[in-house]
Amino acid sequence: MSFEKLDALGRKLEALEHALAILGADEATHMAVGGGDKRAEAMANLAGMYHAQSTAPEIRDWIEAARTADLSEDQRLALTEFERSYVNATCLPTEFVERKTAATMRSEQLWRELRPKGDWQSFLPALEGVVALVREEAQLRADALGLAPYDALLEQYDPGNRTSDLDAVFADLKSFLTDFVPHALAVQEEKLARRPLKPLNGPYPIEKQRELGLAAMRAVGFDFTHGSLAVSHHPFCGGVPSDVRMTTRYRTDEFLSSLMGVLHETGHALYEQGLPKDWSHWPLGKARGMGIHESQSLFVEMQLARSPEFWEFALPLVHLHLGEDAIPDWEIEDILNRVNFVERGYIRVDADEVTYPLHVILRYELEQELVSGKLEASQIPEAWDARMTQYLGISTINDPKDGPMQDVHWPGGAFGYFPSYTLGAMIAAQQWAALEKSLPDAGDMIRKGEFEAINQWRADHIWSQGSRWSTPDLITRATGEPLNADYFKTHLKNRYG
Amino acid sequence: MSFEKLDALGRKLEALEHALAILGADEATHMAVGGGDKRAEAMANLAGMYHAQSTAPEIRDWIEAARTADLSEDQRLALTEFERSYVNATCLPTEFVERKTAATMRSEQLWRELRPKGDWQSFLPALEGVVALVREEAQLRADALGLAPYDALLEQYDPGNRTSDLDAVFADLKSFLTDFVPHALAVQEEKLARRPLKPLNGPYPIEKQRELGLAAMRAVGFDFTHGSLAVSHHPFCGGVPSDVRMTTRYRTDEFLSSLMGVLHETGHALYEQGLPKDWSHWPLGKARGMGIHESQSLFVEMQLARSPEFWEFALPLVHLHLGEDAIPDWEIEDILNRVNFVERGYIRVDADEVTYPLHVILRYELEQELVSGKLEASQIPEAWDARMTQYLGISTINDPKDGPMQDVHWPGGAFGYFPSYTLGAMIAAQQWAALEKSLPDAGDMIRKGEFEAINQWRADHIWSQGSRWSTPDLITRATGEPLNADYFKTHLKNRYG
Repeated sequence: MSFEKLDALGRKLEALEHALAILGADEATHMAVGGGDKRAEAMANLAGMYHAQSTAPEIRDWIEAARTADLSEDQRLALTEFERSYVNATCLPTEFVERKTAATMRSEQLWRELRPKGDWQSFLPALEGVVALVREEAQLRADALGLAPYDALLEQYDPGNRTSDLDAVFADLKSFLTDFVPHALAVQEEKLARRPLKPLNGPYPIEKQRELGLAAMRAVGFDFTHGSLAVSHHPFCGGVPSDVRMTTRYRTDEFLSSLMGVLHETGHALYEQGLPKDWSHWPLGKARGMGIHESQSLFVEMQLARSPEFWEFALPLVHLHLGEDAIPDWEIEDILNRVNFVERGYIRVDADEVTYPLHVILRYELEQELVSGKLEASQIPEAWDARMTQYLGISTINDPKDGPMQDVHWPGGAFGYFPSYTLGAMIAAQQWAALEKSLPDAGDMIRKGEFEAINQWRADHIWSQGSRWSTPDLITRATGEPLNADYFKTHLKNRYG
Repeated sequence: MSFEKLDALGRKLEALEHALAILGADEATHMAVGGGDKRAEAMANLAGMYHAQSTAPEIRDWIEAARTADLSEDQRLALTEFERSYVNATCLPTEFVERKTAATMRSEQLWRELRPKGDWQSFLPALEGVVALVREEAQLRADALGLAPYDALLEQYDPGNRTSDLDAVFADLKSFLTDFVPHALAVQEEKLARRPLKPLNGPYPIEKQRELGLAAMRAVGFDFTHGSLAVSHHPFCGGVPSDVRMTTRYRTDEFLSSLMGVLHETGHALYEQGLPKDWSHWPLGKARGMGIHESQSLFVEMQLARSPEFWEFALPLVHLHLGEDAIPDWEIEDILNRVNFVERGYIRVDADEVTYPLHVILRYELEQELVSGKLEASQIPEAWDARMTQYLGISTINDPKDGPMQDVHWPGGAFGYFPSYTLGAMIAAQQWAALEKSLPDAGDMIRKGEFEAINQWRADHIWSQGSRWSTPDLITRATGEPLNADYFKTHLKNRYG
């Protein structure tokens, strides 16, 4: 009876999530330009209804009562996740949520205004306010969850992840990469001396690029009866599992950025489309977390789509859709040299898979110190510069725009999110290694453009599991061992070493 | 204080309406085919939340308390409309609403299945059930509103309309049309003997038709910062005033059906875009009703877009977008002979503006008798055939599919809706006459494709008024006199006489 109440609540919350997800995707793709104010008002109201319904005090009673009820195994796991959602949603007092929402909205708006000018000093007071609130939030969450403050923040994005485990893995990876980046750059230089980068001879018409993207999505398993591809300024994968809304953007001077972006988002989409349908209205039926989600997109983008095997299949596809003259005389090596180009850069979102983790580790280290109080917001530029210099050999001290002002996460109050990106990259590599043990001819399958068996393995081990297990447990169950940076290191060595 | 509560409630309801409107438009235009079940579930849940929030018992107290509060003129009018909405939403017991929803859903599904076969006998029991429920509903509404039963049904669609007024107007129109239809057909025959109908030489590419439709929308005043045009199987005008979602459909063998459909829907869109923005979250700020709404679409479609003046402007537009060879040697008369073609037919939705009202009056008469109990569902085929024979000279007795089974309204339980179509046509003609008195050179403006002054008159007299007045009061205020069929009759005589 109490579980039925939770079940019914889940259906109402799913309806509001559905509305918010579709309205959000619609806003970025089909909304008239003047529709924004009313859309924002409608979504804020719906989010308010969601919050009110998901934090109602009687839910606590239903959860307590359901504990002693006669539940199936699925229901028992579902109850745990209902409780986890409820505790995460209610552990902050309303007064605090309102205060933080107001402060982060102001800070994010200010960031949008000041970032192009690189005006760190004017932005600093707002960020100091956010850091103070995040420290407060971390303590509130820590008290409610019985965790250390930064772990309590991590818990929102990937349940079960703890700094005590991650610190060692990240330290291992960092020490590897600080040596490996110069090595990979040297290898690349040598390779490019023998075979220079070929220029892309656009224009590549958008309509043809769209057909190529759709063909690539279809090939790797996107289900077009439950999703579609549109255009938006910032590519995303949104919508709902029954109707995934993917977007890309096109430039006509080259086609690889759109195509690789489409493949990345398709990785997210496959996870959503593969979630257990019967539990779609329970927290148990949702994707596990941000690190796992990113591991699914990076599996497609990095493990599959930047491999030589993939391009044996994909090069003819490019010719089919863009024409024989699109990239005349290009061989697979030429494509790989482009899509796997390594470069020391300032900007995280533009980084390649070799340097990207160093951008993340820098943020992971700094945000832990910011939360603990070891570092103050005013000290960020020096700390950022010191680590950029140490990890990547480049200085950002005179360029806050492309240094600590480049990301929206901190201005928006999202601390604990950054590690997900590199966790995703490591999990993707570990997943490929486990998968290849079960499917020794996976490489041949990719060459032929046959992704069914690979997707089935991922559906069985990850997608169908929804939120049955914590992030570390899911990794262990799916791959046979806990998170281990060696797989990612091996992957990098094989590709760039 | 009580008014503030109503105001806040209005904002919540507007958010749910926004979600339902955009989700509904999205379903018909961009949803993946497999997304339907979850979309239906989400929308049913949101509609349930809307119903629960809009019928909460405390609203009655807020309305009572607000009556004695110090309100502005706008707030006082708003209060009246809040109350009208509340009474309309609460006058049916929940038990009845559930019973009727279940019955009409079944009946509508059955109708979809049986209509193509014309299987009246199998459908009859379901329709008998619906008629019994509609009689019950009419009595419940009548008791709550202090109106006669059929008037209480009308009240849902156009507040203030009463059969005591409409009967005379419809009788007048019917008597005119039964003579006028044969006359118009004879005039047309003579005209076509001199100038035969020219064939349309397709194919007309969809992309070009789309550009033509967009140009026509823009010309007559559609605001693309607050709306867009997409494609759907059944054309509609949906969305919200800040983001109107219009659709059309295309065939490539001719372009006029899409173009005229676009102009019709643009008429609906202009009304929505012109509603008072400050009250968008009050019932006062919504469109008045179905008859007025249809008058705005028919004003654009019939009064403007099927006139010779319009085609002086529009014929070059057709050539511009479809090419000089699209309709070679066509003169304005050739277009008019096509878009104003009169024909006795079985199907209401395919009817021209001369015969259309007879289809509606037939239904208006029959549904009054069905509600009062004078007619039983089993007697519909004979009654329908008798009137079709009398009004239009064609028999439907052997063809229920194209007779009483052609419309979704009765299977869906929507009685009292049909009159809106012809009220709209009459109001549109009366509006044109009033407008021409203020703007004697309106015809010249149309010739030049200048619709600003015409739209400003309509904005001032109708769009900006929202729901300030009952339908009959709005007609009188906007046009200077009560509904009068003479204007529509004169319009038909001028165009077809």
